[in-house]
Amino acid sequence: MTYCLALKLNEGLVFCSDSRTNAGADQVSTYSKMHRWGIDGERQYVLLSAGNLATTQSVLNRVQRDIAEGAEESLANMRYMSDAAAYVGKLNKAERERHVSPDDVNAGFNPAATLILGGQIRNEEPQLFMIYPEGNYISVSDITPFLQIGEKKYGKPILDRIIRTDTDVDSAVRCALVSMDSTMRSNATVGPPIELLVYKSDSLTGGCYHAFDDNHAYLQSLRRSWDEKVINAFNEMPSLPLDC
Amino acid sequence: MTYCLALKLNEGLVFCSDSRTNAGADQVSTYSKMHRWGIDGERQYVLLSAGNLATTQSVLNRVQRDIAEGAEESLANMRYMSDAAAYVGKLNKAERERHVSPDDVNAGFNPAATLILGGQIRNEEPQLFMIYPEGNYISVSDITPFLQIGEKKYGKPILDRIIRTDTDVDSAVRCALVSMDSTMRSNATVGPPIELLVYKSDSLTGGCYHAFDDNHAYLQSLRRSWDEKVINAFNEMPSLPLDC
Repeated sequence: MTYCLALKLNEGLVFCSDSRTNAGADQVSTYSKMHRWGIDGERQYVLLSAGNLATTQSVLNRVQRDIAEGAEESLANMRYMSDAAAYVGKLNKAERERHVSPDDVNAGFNPAATLILGGQIRNEEPQLFMIYPEGNYISVSDITPFLQIGEKKYGKPILDRIIRTDTDVDSAVRCALVSMDSTMRSNATVGPPIELLVYKSDSLTGGCYHAFDDNHAYLQSLRRSWDEKVINAFNEMPSLPLDC
Repeated sequence: MTYCLALKLNEGLVFCSDSRTNAGADQVSTYSKMHRWGIDGERQYVLLSAGNLATTQSVLNRVQRDIAEGAEESLANMRYMSDAAAYVGKLNKAERERHVSPDDVNAGFNPAATLILGGQIRNEEPQLFMIYPEGNYISVSDITPFLQIGEKKYGKPILDRIIRTDTDVDSAVRCALVSMDSTMRSNATVGPPIELLVYKSDSLTGGCYHAFDDNHAYLQSLRRSWDEKVINAFNEMPSLPLDC
């Protein structure tokens, strides 16, 4: 499984991803799901991936080849972020269709991948898109300024409570890590290292990147602190005046 | 969708269920998913249901008919709670098999239902079982003394943090309602009225039952209080010493 999330704030974009992949519970590996490419001062992209690993690797290889070979369409020459989302969606759809067959789907094989593409192209606002296996895509809204892919349910309630477009980056980073930590706690197929990237609006640089392994002091203190505070909060709640 | 949960504590059993059913987003109804039957001083049962409504109604009708007709096998004459689980599992499996066909499954039709059966028979401990569509069943363990059916992910983290076998009933009731409230907030197909039942160990009576509609003062104060406290707890968390 996988859990990746991305937040679009006034101050910039925050990306967070786990690194565990599994093909069955007995075949667990570690792969980064956060992929970055950019030209300083001109354009920056971050791509998060969930779903079939062969599909996401093929899509990424194709993205990189198109850049290296100076293809007519590549992330190097897109004029708008939405064009970049359409381009990545086209690759994602084509790769899935190369491998899907009705028999395989019934047998439980699924070559689908879902992606989050974020970044900024000069003279445009920063943008964030969710790209579906079918190649279409949606952007975030001001009301729900975050996207999640993979195992998203456990970590969603805290995002719903905290994240607004005007949330400061410091709080957003903590919230992303709490959301990730709750997910790791509840689903053993989501695991470290945790990658985190903060992109400040209009910086047009690679941003601030951080990887945390499971023993990282901050991650451990966050986990301990959140656990204590939630239990304390719970213990202060009003009792039901129920005469049982 | 549905969300039901049941807790097995030293002090007794706690059951909680929502009442929203939907066949597609445009066909939403209200049905109780908490079903109770017992003979005071001898035996008490509570059955929670999730999944196909036609299947759960048929199972319940059959359970009631077997009791009324004095059938050889019925909830009225089971000697052990595990026999009761096997009996309900058999009915559940038979009802599903009457309606399943490979073509329908591919078309998205699914007659499966999952049930939680809890209660106590005199001279036995209180028990709690999860009964699968295939008719088999598991009981809770001391390490994980709760069961959930339906939309269980949003409400699981708080149960993981709070519920132990020695949790007092008062805290367990609050925790069950917080778990239910988080689920309602995140999934529009889980909804009120919320039903709650507390069965005290060895009481062998129907227990203490309560139904909350959405405007119930306690449910509203719980929601407001939890929201505030979680946000306060979050705001007190340590910041990441990240120089971005």
